[in-house]
Amino acid sequence: MDEATADNFDALKLAQVEAPELSKNAHKKAQKQEKLAAQKANKSATNTTKEAGRAEAKKAVNKPSKKVEGAALIGIDVDKSKDFSGWYQQVLTKGDFLDYYDVSGCYILKPASYFIWEEIQAWFNVKIKGIGVENCAFPLFVSEDVLQREKAHIEGFAAEVAWVTHAGNTPLEKKIAIRPTSETVMYPYYAKWIRSHRDLPLRLNQWNSVVRWEFKHPQPFLRTREFHWQEGHTAHLKPETAQKEVRQILEYYAGVYEELLAVPVIRGRKTEKEKFAGADYTETVEGFIAATGRGIQGGTSHHLGQNFSKMFGISVEDPSAKEGEKKPPLNVFQNSWGLSTRTIGVMVMTHSDNRGLVVPPRVSRKQVVIVPVGITAKSTDEERTALYEEVDALAIVLRANDIRVETDFREGYSPGWKFNDWEQKGVPLRLEFGPKDSASHQVTTSRRDIQGNKGTIAITELASGVKNLLDTIQNDLYDRADTEFKSHVKHITKWDDFVPALNSKNVCLIPHCLTEECEDQIKDLSARKEENDDTPQDERAPSMGAKSLCIPFEQPEGLEKGVTECCNPQCKNKAEAWCLFGRSY
Amino acid sequence: MDEATADNFDALKLAQVEAPELSKNAHKKAQKQEKLAAQKANKSATNTTKEAGRAEAKKAVNKPSKKVEGAALIGIDVDKSKDFSGWYQQVLTKGDFLDYYDVSGCYILKPASYFIWEEIQAWFNVKIKGIGVENCAFPLFVSEDVLQREKAHIEGFAAEVAWVTHAGNTPLEKKIAIRPTSETVMYPYYAKWIRSHRDLPLRLNQWNSVVRWEFKHPQPFLRTREFHWQEGHTAHLKPETAQKEVRQILEYYAGVYEELLAVPVIRGRKTEKEKFAGADYTETVEGFIAATGRGIQGGTSHHLGQNFSKMFGISVEDPSAKEGEKKPPLNVFQNSWGLSTRTIGVMVMTHSDNRGLVVPPRVSRKQVVIVPVGITAKSTDEERTALYEEVDALAIVLRANDIRVETDFREGYSPGWKFNDWEQKGVPLRLEFGPKDSASHQVTTSRRDIQGNKGTIAITELASGVKNLLDTIQNDLYDRADTEFKSHVKHITKWDDFVPALNSKNVCLIPHCLTEECEDQIKDLSARKEENDDTPQDERAPSMGAKSLCIPFEQPEGLEKGVTECCNPQCKNKAEAWCLFGRSY
Repeated sequence: MDEATADNFDALKLAQVEAPELSKNAHKKAQKQEKLAAQKANKSATNTTKEAGRAEAKKAVNKPSKKVEGAALIGIDVDKSKDFSGWYQQVLTKGDFLDYYDVSGCYILKPASYFIWEEIQAWFNVKIKGIGVENCAFPLFVSEDVLQREKAHIEGFAAEVAWVTHAGNTPLEKKIAIRPTSETVMYPYYAKWIRSHRDLPLRLNQWNSVVRWEFKHPQPFLRTREFHWQEGHTAHLKPETAQKEVRQILEYYAGVYEELLAVPVIRGRKTEKEKFAGADYTETVEGFIAATGRGIQGGTSHHLGQNFSKMFGISVEDPSAKEGEKKPPLNVFQNSWGLSTRTIGVMVMTHSDNRGLVVPPRVSRKQVVIVPVGITAKSTDEERTALYEEVDALAIVLRANDIRVETDFREGYSPGWKFNDWEQKGVPLRLEFGPKDSASHQVTTSRRDIQGNKGTIAITELASGVKNLLDTIQNDLYDRADTEFKSHVKHITKWDDFVPALNSKNVCLIPHCLTEECEDQIKDLSARKEENDDTPQDERAPSMGAKSLCIPFEQPEGLEKGVTECCNPQCKNKAEAWCLFGRSY
Repeated sequence: MDEATADNFDALKLAQVEAPELSKNAHKKAQKQEKLAAQKANKSATNTTKEAGRAEAKKAVNKPSKKVEGAALIGIDVDKSKDFSGWYQQVLTKGDFLDYYDVSGCYILKPASYFIWEEIQAWFNVKIKGIGVENCAFPLFVSEDVLQREKAHIEGFAAEVAWVTHAGNTPLEKKIAIRPTSETVMYPYYAKWIRSHRDLPLRLNQWNSVVRWEFKHPQPFLRTREFHWQEGHTAHLKPETAQKEVRQILEYYAGVYEELLAVPVIRGRKTEKEKFAGADYTETVEGFIAATGRGIQGGTSHHLGQNFSKMFGISVEDPSAKEGEKKPPLNVFQNSWGLSTRTIGVMVMTHSDNRGLVVPPRVSRKQVVIVPVGITAKSTDEERTALYEEVDALAIVLRANDIRVETDFREGYSPGWKFNDWEQKGVPLRLEFGPKDSASHQVTTSRRDIQGNKGTIAITELASGVKNLLDTIQNDLYDRADTEFKSHVKHITKWDDFVPALNSKNVCLIPHCLTEECEDQIKDLSARKEENDDTPQDERAPSMGAKSLCIPFEQPEGLEKGVTECCNPQCKNKAEAWCLFGRSY
């Protein structure tokens, strides 16, 4: 702020009103800024980039008919319930989370969203280091030979692998792949490093980015060509310890969603059809996007068994062999597990609304913004200065209590404009402070998650009051999302109810035989055949067939193995378990 | 450890002795393990990878004549002073810092070295966040159009850019570069985001990896094709605030070296010849590798002036313009600054010795290892259990005081073998604890940084005693390195003393005119011409010509501008400043 000087201050003084409506002058100002920005955007120097970025952004953009009535010029102008994709794109870009980039499928994570990733990293690092996992860094590149060693595994990625063929103008002797995941990057070295059972368990994790050059419609955070994640890769002597870890990590993933992002998830196991290529089994946390009625995979933890250790020759002498006794070497038991920035996309889709982002306090870069109010054209400079000093003092108290607080002293903007601005950015709690508040020794509070909700906190209880309110917001966000999710999980036992339930934006728990063949049939039977266009799913009512999301660990009553029929009318098998099906991301 | 079971325990019990010599049986064991490992290494499954990694590693490997006399089989067997490259490679791999990878020029950072990078990140993040810099993530890829926009800048990188041309088997429409640095990735978006002086300063940083496909001899940490770093990119309204930041960041870089890594650096400005392509000026911290007598650039902070902002059209309306007044838009003033994992290489080269790594306590993943001693074949199980419980209790006390401690209860290894093992890994402080120590209520201490240095700490003062000792080790490491560096900075005013000083492994402060032409001459005059082979510098006496390292901020006395001659006998100019020259990395 030391570089800023107030311009046109006198003209705009009049515009500063305490009410949250936008002042006309502020509007004009905003319009002028928008116009200037638009002019700038057309400058030739940076044209290519921006046009390219914009071209992709346009794909998902709002149609006029779906605009929010009376939306502010600078605000979100598409309705979440009418044009979800357009809304999502606007919420992310106008909320300062993300920008589009001139390489399609790649995005810029701006500080506000990257901060969330840093919070997730810090939290998760404490958890995994606590159980003995260590961080490391393997290279970005993998040679063709090594990449293709595990055939079944690589099949799932082959079409999406990005290949480096040249350095400068020099062709490389052998083309080199950018890792789509690091199993084949790491496991040859596990074979080298693990020489004895004393080297076990080997538990490594890395925070990196991987590249999968998908040709499907990209979506920020959810499906991107480069994405940030962590990948854990561990090796154990015994299957039980490996399997125990699979579940432990899954609980940490659930913790990231539930404790940090205030997003409920269902824990379960993937079916044989949906498990990770090369795994013995996959455990998963599954989320739900209420606006589209689609399920979304939140994070997966795989038990690889000995599949990779046999392929890569990762073995130790059997420690149970007695002296002189010959026992065959033991292949180790492995896990791999990953959680990506997709987490952030799920969080945004869950909580945010037509006014912009809603960010849970635990992960919000700015938890509280204090906006001075009640300064008008009649106020003296002394009154203004006195008020601003009080606001500063409030901020100091909050900061001393580890609350991330911002003060908004920007000149030339009305409080109303500022309110909208911070709401769009998702700051969980706004404190308004004017001469009347000062006289009453209080601050006025306004929660981002509930429209029109105002209250007060006595200044003597500022820090504890704000802390409690932030906790309440965090809990309420979770509870609302949880209620929403639960109300959209339908227990279905009659096939005739299945597709209508999906069409009403639900996911369905059905008795299922768990065979791959039956899953394929269900997918086929639940797809709306007439549609065959390229439009992304969110642009229309979802029409894809339903996939199995997981077999929840928490199984409802009412299913008798060997007696209850599989829900699929074309299937002759008996049900094995309640299985969660849904249209999904 | 819960997976480990003791094998051959009885046979090896006899081998457990308190003295630090290797027992014969432990030797045999180690030999057996080496042999098994070698056999494993030949398994077909992982052959390709390991052979490739090994091929590169061999390039720098020890010759028999340069071996350390009597070196343990598992230990470092090359002498730092005789074969620096071979020593460096062994210290890193046997100390568990790093492994070679089957893509040349790429390396695996194992947990012990990655931990140091995490410590640097945490420390530096606090510093930069404290001054308002925020972290973010820009994509790995950059399109050809954008990359080539700043011609002068890209010229320095063009030959080393890795190009992605295919996804799976599909050729991309346009080839895409992997960022060699992110100026051209980020600045088009700075132009888009910076719409008014109110958006300034914009201060972003990212922790990522970049790729420069160099064809020179690669060296772990120092010259690698993919490397990890942070790159900060900031935009300011006024040059003064930008320039102030350049120096502030430089001080943080110096802090990473001096406070965390115990490595002294010289702060200064690069000459015109050596500054960053596209910068107005570059400030630098310069380190020194005493073993080779070569300087090494430690980290650089650039003031880019308006060079990039003009190229990329990053400008704002002049806030000093009065209402209605037309003033030309102002191009912003920019900085960029970067620090890489090279830091770790410099640290290793500075402190480590013929017994392996020496890691400063501040950044060591394990600061203290406790090794139980004095348990012999005559000891009872009760005696062993009692001692181990005491060791556990010591560890608990230290952990409660935030000391990173490891206990070594491995069965089947003698204390001597363990001592060597932890010394090789560079753990700063070893505590030995046996029945005699227990009876005297003390622990025996042994510092890694001073051979043969033993002492005791009373158990009643365990935590404070260990903390003090760790601080002493940290300070002593710095002081020794500082004394060494200082003794190798020669003030030279006569040209005839210059090359001999370089040949005696010094860097030289000389009066210099600071012209590029003169620098080229000095480089030429100080190179040993006869050598023209491909052998890396460290394999022989350094023969390259001397470059300017920096113009130190701290200028010695005795130079009179316009009077003192430039040190280069072929130069007719007067000296502008004392300039540090040296052979360098």
